[in-house]
Amino acid sequence: MSAGTAISPNLALDQEVARLRAAGNRVVHLGFGEARLPLPPGLLRALGDGAEHTAYGPVAGRPEVLAAVAGYHARRRLPTEADQVVVAPGSKPLLMSLVAAVDGDVLLPRPAWVTYGPQARLLGRRAWGVDIPRRCGGVPDPAALVDTVRQVRERGRRPGLLVLTLPDNPTGTLAPPGLIRAVCEIARAEDLTVVSDEIYRDLLHEPTAAFLSPAEVAPERTVVTTGLSKTHALGGWRIGSARFPAGDRGAELRARVLATASEVWSSLAGPLQSVARYAYEEPPELTAHVARGARLHAAVARAVHRTMTDAGADCRAPDGGFYVYPDFEPARAALAAHGAVDSASLERVLLERAGVAVLGGHHFGDDPGALRFRAATSLLYGATDRQRRTALDSDDPVELPYIRSELERMTLALTKLTA
Amino acid sequence: MSAGTAISPNLALDQEVARLRAAGNRVVHLGFGEARLPLPPGLLRALGDGAEHTAYGPVAGRPEVLAAVAGYHARRRLPTEADQVVVAPGSKPLLMSLVAAVDGDVLLPRPAWVTYGPQARLLGRRAWGVDIPRRCGGVPDPAALVDTVRQVRERGRRPGLLVLTLPDNPTGTLAPPGLIRAVCEIARAEDLTVVSDEIYRDLLHEPTAAFLSPAEVAPERTVVTTGLSKTHALGGWRIGSARFPAGDRGAELRARVLATASEVWSSLAGPLQSVARYAYEEPPELTAHVARGARLHAAVARAVHRTMTDAGADCRAPDGGFYVYPDFEPARAALAAHGAVDSASLERVLLERAGVAVLGGHHFGDDPGALRFRAATSLLYGATDRQRRTALDSDDPVELPYIRSELERMTLALTKLTA
Repeated sequence: MSAGTAISPNLALDQEVARLRAAGNRVVHLGFGEARLPLPPGLLRALGDGAEHTAYGPVAGRPEVLAAVAGYHARRRLPTEADQVVVAPGSKPLLMSLVAAVDGDVLLPRPAWVTYGPQARLLGRRAWGVDIPRRCGGVPDPAALVDTVRQVRERGRRPGLLVLTLPDNPTGTLAPPGLIRAVCEIARAEDLTVVSDEIYRDLLHEPTAAFLSPAEVAPERTVVTTGLSKTHALGGWRIGSARFPAGDRGAELRARVLATASEVWSSLAGPLQSVARYAYEEPPELTAHVARGARLHAAVARAVHRTMTDAGADCRAPDGGFYVYPDFEPARAALAAHGAVDSASLERVLLERAGVAVLGGHHFGDDPGALRFRAATSLLYGATDRQRRTALDSDDPVELPYIRSELERMTLALTKLTA
Repeated sequence: MSAGTAISPNLALDQEVARLRAAGNRVVHLGFGEARLPLPPGLLRALGDGAEHTAYGPVAGRPEVLAAVAGYHARRRLPTEADQVVVAPGSKPLLMSLVAAVDGDVLLPRPAWVTYGPQARLLGRRAWGVDIPRRCGGVPDPAALVDTVRQVRERGRRPGLLVLTLPDNPTGTLAPPGLIRAVCEIARAEDLTVVSDEIYRDLLHEPTAAFLSPAEVAPERTVVTTGLSKTHALGGWRIGSARFPAGDRGAELRARVLATASEVWSSLAGPLQSVARYAYEEPPELTAHVARGARLHAAVARAVHRTMTDAGADCRAPDGGFYVYPDFEPARAALAAHGAVDSASLERVLLERAGVAVLGGHHFGDDPGALRFRAATSLLYGATDRQRRTALDSDDPVELPYIRSELERMTLALTKLTA
């Protein structure tokens, strides 16, 4: 099978919004999970300091960089040696390599981030979506997971990899410890390898929220992926990492990922490894910056959540990151009058009639007949560096006029369609 | 099929040599295709200038970066629009995406660079090696190519992609125009898509050598890949690019590559795109630096070639880059007495008995029973920045004592084994 021609829908929509705006259209951009926040000076310095690394280095990353990532995990109740770590140009190539490294089919929450499924298909693997519980996303409902594993085996296939997202993209929610324990028990019983995508971990809205990593519950089989794109608003620098289990199983998995890495990307670029080292060492000036970002994300995500529920949607309250995932089933009749009868038409109607860009739930593997979409809230912080800096430093960012006006536009648009 | 656990053999050998040297062993390192030359200040400035690009941008690369790459190709008789170009973290991910983009089996010269074959296998594709002509490598012998295409079809399979390398790694030779025309004619008759890997193009030993790109002969079906790793001794920064055909076929191919790119690496990191822009615009201070590098590579590759033929090998004279690919068949009896009876044992004997690190021909898909290996000559320029800078500026670098002594060590080692 050869690759399709459609680029990842979030990146495609971001390019489309840029075109619409360049043509003079006003668009509320809820379609892309990126925060455009100021660059902390330490990250800039680290980039320059890393310029000397022009030579090919170890595929996994330089020893001091891997040690910094290990320290990051150790501060999160995951004791880690440097030889359990790999850094890469983003977490995407690591996630793809993990699919390649584990035999069998891939099990995903439904809905799940847009990229997991296409990566599996690129490698000729089959991906199965498993419905999420009512309370949160990012993990499958345990009963549904058991049922899907049974179905996979009944078809003579083998379930291999289970992907979890904590906190979740697209729902913005965090699976609670009890649910993580239940899912990890199933993973152990069924001998699944777990990928825990924790790229939003440092953007929890309540810093004291109970975060339990699957790597704490099933350490022998869980790979944790993360990166700097979300925490540090640094998507354009492409820096990701993976932490593998200690012991033989982890070493074998890591060796397989490094084999793929050596043929597909060689290593993370030298200067960006220096950035990774600095960021994962978590100097105080950087953690303070991250904390301010998390506070801003929390305030705006909560405001957008209220907008959605005020407009009649069912919507889980967000716990982390910058997403909400409303379900407009309660407004189905009103939306149908505007031509929005499923998630693809709802996405289109919102963009064309209301100037609101979102990604329909079908892009996340969700039931295409449902009236669900993901609203990314991180591009509402202002149009200029100065506005975004002000938002970052504000105690009440949703009262800033340029944020308030976007929220009001959104409310107006949704209310018009759902009334 | 899941990935193996062995990393790319050239990267693995480079790590092994580093370990041996750290343990106090003296090793002549001919195992890795990397030049460690000084970083031109313009490249360092461009990196810093690009730091502001922290946001996700277009998957293909920023418009001004693509325009710079287009200009680079236009100056080489390949008129190019920016929308025919993609930049990426190295050419490896582009090459992998091209395999994914084209249906059918992959045809490779035998021997060929170590990564093409494993990339095909990662994607579940079958790769076929086709013997090279006596005069040069990087392209298949035309008669052998016709024969292999017939065999592929007889098995009910479809040949899809033909990979050429100009100048070649591992043989260091450049296929002449007549041969390129013959191979392109077959590609057109059999409807193959051609990938022309031209990453060593700017390192021809004779700047006036007749270089004919397959993209000039079969423009409708040829994708050219290149990068900064070799020309600018910048492997650690991971910057590559691809130029697609104009027209519908090229647009479709590029769309497929961008689809894979969006799911696997998103884009080349923003600061490195600024480096790409600067380098592909080819300011005079940079082209002068590249010319000095090419002169150094030529002098040392020719000296190593003499060493090999003096020791009794058959060896094509190098035309570009920094490789020679000797065949020690004439010394089979003498080598057998030392336990070197095929390319794997020859590689081992050379490292363990003679302290010379090379990659056996089997890593390049060559007949494992042959006594061939690749000697990369680019790590002979000195152990320190100062030595390498002196070598770069020297009119007669092989007479520098630290280069001369490595060549003599090599001669001694080979003569001992082949006498």
